[in-house]
Amino acid sequence: MAGSQFGEIFRISTWGESHGAGLGVVIDGCPAGIVLGEDDFSEDMARRRPGQSGYATPRSEEDRVEILSGIFEGKTTGTPISLVIRNTSQRSSDYSDIAGYYRPGHADRTYDDKYGFRDYRGGGRSSGRETAARVAAGVVAKKLLQPMGINTTAYVKKIGSCECGLSGIPDKKLIESSPLRIPDPEVSRAAEAYLKEKMSEGDSAGAIVECITTGVPAGLGDPVFSKLDALLGQAVFSIGAVKGVEFGAGFEVAEMSGFTNNDIHRNNAGGILGGISTGDDIVLRAAFKPTPSISKEQSAYDRQGNEITVSVRGRHDPLVAARAVVVVESMVNIVLADRILINMGSRADNITELYNKLNKNR
Amino acid sequence: MAGSQFGEIFRISTWGESHGAGLGVVIDGCPAGIVLGEDDFSEDMARRRPGQSGYATPRSEEDRVEILSGIFEGKTTGTPISLVIRNTSQRSSDYSDIAGYYRPGHADRTYDDKYGFRDYRGGGRSSGRETAARVAAGVVAKKLLQPMGINTTAYVKKIGSCECGLSGIPDKKLIESSPLRIPDPEVSRAAEAYLKEKMSEGDSAGAIVECITTGVPAGLGDPVFSKLDALLGQAVFSIGAVKGVEFGAGFEVAEMSGFTNNDIHRNNAGGILGGISTGDDIVLRAAFKPTPSISKEQSAYDRQGNEITVSVRGRHDPLVAARAVVVVESMVNIVLADRILINMGSRADNITELYNKLNKNR
Amino acid sequence: MAGSQFGEIFRISTWGESHGAGLGVVIDGCPAGIVLGEDDFSEDMARRRPGQSGYATPRSEEDRVEILSGIFEGKTTGTPISLVIRNTSQRSSDYSDIAGYYRPGHADRTYDDKYGFRDYRGGGRSSGRETAARVAAGVVAKKLLQPMGINTTAYVKKIGSCECGLSGIPDKKLIESSPLRIPDPEVSRAAEAYLKEKMSEGDSAGAIVECITTGVPAGLGDPVFSKLDALLGQAVFSIGAVKGVEFGAGFEVAEMSGFTNNDIHRNNAGGILGGISTGDDIVLRAAFKPTPSISKEQSAYDRQGNEITVSVRGRHDPLVAARAVVVVESMVNIVLADRILINMGSRADNITELYNKLNKNR
Amino acid sequence: MAGSQFGEIFRISTWGESHGAGLGVVIDGCPAGIVLGEDDFSEDMARRRPGQSGYATPRSEEDRVEILSGIFEGKTTGTPISLVIRNTSQRSSDYSDIAGYYRPGHADRTYDDKYGFRDYRGGGRSSGRETAARVAAGVVAKKLLQPMGINTTAYVKKIGSCECGLSGIPDKKLIESSPLRIPDPEVSRAAEAYLKEKMSEGDSAGAIVECITTGVPAGLGDPVFSKLDALLGQAVFSIGAVKGVEFGAGFEVAEMSGFTNNDIHRNNAGGILGGISTGDDIVLRAAFKPTPSISKEQSAYDRQGNEITVSVRGRHDPLVAARAVVVVESMVNIVLADRILINMGSRADNITELYNKLNKNR
Repeated sequence: MAGSQFGEIFRISTWGESHGAGLGVVIDGCPAGIVLGEDDFSEDMARRRPGQSGYATPRSEEDRVEILSGIFEGKTTGTPISLVIRNTSQRSSDYSDIAGYYRPGHADRTYDDKYGFRDYRGGGRSSGRETAARVAAGVVAKKLLQPMGINTTAYVKKIGSCECGLSGIPDKKLIESSPLRIPDPEVSRAAEAYLKEKMSEGDSAGAIVECITTGVPAGLGDPVFSKLDALLGQAVFSIGAVKGVEFGAGFEVAEMSGFTNNDIHRNNAGGILGGISTGDDIVLRAAFKPTPSISKEQSAYDRQGNEITVSVRGRHDPLVAARAVVVVESMVNIVLADRILINMGSRADNITELYNKLNKNR
Repeated sequence: MAGSQFGEIFRISTWGESHGAGLGVVIDGCPAGIVLGEDDFSEDMARRRPGQSGYATPRSEEDRVEILSGIFEGKTTGTPISLVIRNTSQRSSDYSDIAGYYRPGHADRTYDDKYGFRDYRGGGRSSGRETAARVAAGVVAKKLLQPMGINTTAYVKKIGSCECGLSGIPDKKLIESSPLRIPDPEVSRAAEAYLKEKMSEGDSAGAIVECITTGVPAGLGDPVFSKLDALLGQAVFSIGAVKGVEFGAGFEVAEMSGFTNNDIHRNNAGGILGGISTGDDIVLRAAFKPTPSISKEQSAYDRQGNEITVSVRGRHDPLVAARAVVVVESMVNIVLADRILINMGSRADNITELYNKLNKNR
Repeated sequence: MAGSQFGEIFRISTWGESHGAGLGVVIDGCPAGIVLGEDDFSEDMARRRPGQSGYATPRSEEDRVEILSGIFEGKTTGTPISLVIRNTSQRSSDYSDIAGYYRPGHADRTYDDKYGFRDYRGGGRSSGRETAARVAAGVVAKKLLQPMGINTTAYVKKIGSCECGLSGIPDKKLIESSPLRIPDPEVSRAAEAYLKEKMSEGDSAGAIVECITTGVPAGLGDPVFSKLDALLGQAVFSIGAVKGVEFGAGFEVAEMSGFTNNDIHRNNAGGILGGISTGDDIVLRAAFKPTPSISKEQSAYDRQGNEITVSVRGRHDPLVAARAVVVVESMVNIVLADRILINMGSRADNITELYNKLNKNR
Repeated sequence: MAGSQFGEIFRISTWGESHGAGLGVVIDGCPAGIVLGEDDFSEDMARRRPGQSGYATPRSEEDRVEILSGIFEGKTTGTPISLVIRNTSQRSSDYSDIAGYYRPGHADRTYDDKYGFRDYRGGGRSSGRETAARVAAGVVAKKLLQPMGINTTAYVKKIGSCECGLSGIPDKKLIESSPLRIPDPEVSRAAEAYLKEKMSEGDSAGAIVECITTGVPAGLGDPVFSKLDALLGQAVFSIGAVKGVEFGAGFEVAEMSGFTNNDIHRNNAGGILGGISTGDDIVLRAAFKPTPSISKEQSAYDRQGNEITVSVRGRHDPLVAARAVVVVESMVNIVLADRILINMGSRADNITELYNKLNKNR
């Protein structure tokens, strides 16, 4: 595989560039019988969509999801679900000047090194716009998880030094009421002030996103390389701009002792022990680096290797995290959907029972 | 896949339990023509082996790697390499008492929940002993990487609050001269004092391991789900006890601005941009939780759900990280070997050229 | 995987139903730098397209391939290539009557048994129209193979008892000059007469297709489950209506002795020994069953399990094989493209050489 | 993957050469709770074992299967099952003379072309001895299938022109009572006479094996590339010496009309329609070429490309098929076990039901 596929049974294959015809995803392995229509995608696509607030790129995309296959009479058929999101507001002209140099902090040069040339229009495949397809796939995964009572919520925990001390599951409405998706009005206002300052300098800000999943059954994840945290780690690190991922107590475990870390309520474990879900809430955090495309003048290399000074133009977010919240949720839901399907076959007694039932019904 | 396989072309399949006949790995997809013998495994296996110092379990295992297939006249043949490490010092009697309860911080209950029963002897498949097979596989990966000048070195950066301020590539001899694998004699001594204190209380300690790879060619890793950091993230999170992983500036990016993070020397990127290697050193850190098996009395649940007080007996390390250093290196080398093979086909011109050469030689 | 993906590096993910919005394929793992445009698909799509002759369904589809991603400045970028073929001539009304019963020889009941319900419009995903996506993917594979001099040609060898005694590589023009793609004018005319007779009875005919690939380098295919013949076998059996596949001497080997079969020119091997290409022409044959949708009255079961008499309406081919010739070629090309990419990493010396060259160029 | 793995959930990884330390298989993804011991392997290993009759190689191997992992208290644990079969009777000296030339009909030259050198001892990885690991894995698959009433039986249908006209499921005892595994005493005797004649000439014979599986639930197999016949096709073609595979009416469909082929009892379909099991018996046939290693003098090429005359020494079967019967059964069982696990997730209602039940039990 060359990397645009994820999952083993519930497998998504995404495609598309920032400035091509559009983006999409083919979902193979989605079980039959899930009620699904194009309107189901609207809410989550809107949460990821550009142009939501003054803190997001003004590029305006409706990001309507079109279903091309896999649905009959309003239900999934068990065959591949093809979803397309058209690009409607691409402005390639914004990018003509970046063909000649490598934007700092971007994949420009690494793509060139790998492939011998690159699609320089808005980052091509390495654009954050690629995540639209993940959110579309995440909606389908969520539809599978909901009847089991599994719910995932992510929010922005920290921007700069403005940190939200929240513990427990945040309220979705409170998150959405903040333009930065920080579910603490006071911290949100402080972070807005910090972000406005950065924007006024043509600069951008990093952040930490926390994601909590409730209702996860015990037993998901597989030893030893498909541990649930290993797969969630891959899933979240695969989102552009993520430079760190941690579960439960995370990096703080370095300063803990075994006695302190082994809490009987398992809060430090983040819902996973030995790579398998405990049945507790799954808690993970991801560190998002600041948007590298800034108008503030900075050093860069041109294609000939000369150091030059550049100011990156175009329509860029000063903060990745607020729009990425739904992307994190989507990747978590995709991992869980896949592991639930894999786990259907973990015990011989369950298998025999299901097949005996199916045979009796014939 | 049920989780005991990793890699796409250079694919390893590990097996084995702490207290069964042994452990092993089958490596499929290793190129033909690599010189390999059983002695090549000795050094790295010794670095992971129990009983190395007063800070490691006194369980004594020689951990000799036996080659059962895939080698002819001292070279890899291109067919599967089967490696076996026999268990010789298992003492199942140590574990008879843990059959009745779930050790805190362990996978005991999650395995029970998943499979309906568990191998309670020393954690079975969830034992840290499982990593012996990874180290054996890592040696083969290293043999493939060495002729390209790719070298990976990991060390213990932090135990408790004792942190090694080192920057740059640490000296391997200096690392090995410390019983805790901290390449700063002063910090090492302070950490030893801290660890001895924990041991005297029947307790254990957490740590942070840093891993640096030099000589990596630009262009490794694949957009968008097989980003090099996503695969390394999966690989390192799959090591038991890891609760956090970060690259380059890691979690500190939350407090950085785009201008600060976009350093022209790319130190903050940790050698990866857009999920593809830049050609710079790859720098990652992993947080290891303290060993959960401690003799200090703590609360636990028995199989009937009653809260009880336990003191976990057996031969346990007070610190996971010092022995895990070589496991981290091994997982990094396995990821790199696999991505190098995948990357052989990234450009049509290279493919045509190789086949034309092969045809001319016939 | 739920089955709509094929290949390991050059991996295709197809989607779509006969009577939905359209069909398509996402190709991941195609190397960068291949010149590719929408016109490149026209010739092969036309060979598979309905309505080509009096012996094919009159359903009229232009089957224009639209490229949605993966191409920049006329060349593949190394990222996923998304191809779409819109359905324009679907007439669901044709199928409303088949919702209530199971067409003999079709997947109607098996889909119902598997998924609990089915898309009954024209067979849904089990329609032969699904193969349009394979042909589109096959064109991309062919573009990769052509510079290495690899060429695949299939033709109809037998219909009923009319058999083409041809040996050696058939002339493409001669094949295309026959409406049944039999490259022997006399046999073609006899087969037309036979087929017209069947059509006049509302019946259909089976056939054998032979496929020959020239210019294949030695060394493709991997022991033991990814033998080249094993993968070609899967690829060709995955085409609907195929009931038999054979290589070289095929089923005739049962009557041969070792001395007879071991011909020094290796004609009996069909270009593959031990599952690996010999460098000789690859020769395979596939048996296609007669189209099961016939207007001639026949017995069937309704959904309640009662035996009824049916005459299947709709626009059906009386012969699958003539249009399937290009589908067989496509599947063969897809397998070869994938194995060529896998084979790039078979020898350590080639790998070291390529990376040293890449590093020198930096 | 480089080819020594098969299956998606029930995944086997085989290893080993004819003249190395031994052979083996690691089975990942086998459900927990299956009763399994080393004695379970004896019967099927004995059916494949050399030295069974005057028509098999006199090489004497006990082929005892040793379980190294994955079993606790007599049951599978859900973690990898590692099985080893030691080579005890290898005589490498038999093969020293074949290092210098390429045996006709063997993989000698293709391995050399692929890997740059080869293990010439008895064919190395390309030896038929490799199938011992498949039979061991097949036993585990069979253990999973048995409680569902799924049974697979293969037998030799044809040797030379001696064909067994049997229809229906053959009696296992009758098969085993024939040294050639032909369940018709008269045909068996005729075939013995034919085979003895070939043996007296230092020659060997080809054959056709038929394999029938009863009790298969409807709904196994996945559109479009993982059709049940496509996967069975790959599985059976992956057995060395197989040159043709067919299902149900097989190659005879070429001479049938749709009306004839669409039998309401579905005998012609061989138990599979649209790539999905119908619930009827699955019937497949495989053509095995004659053993290429013959003592009769024949032409060959040496490593320098000169044509020479050779007489292949060593202990070779004059017929592959009789010992291969259990290999075919094993591959069919492995495919079915895997597809049953995949199919656990085909319908959303089954998934929700199982997880609700698991949650209630906690």
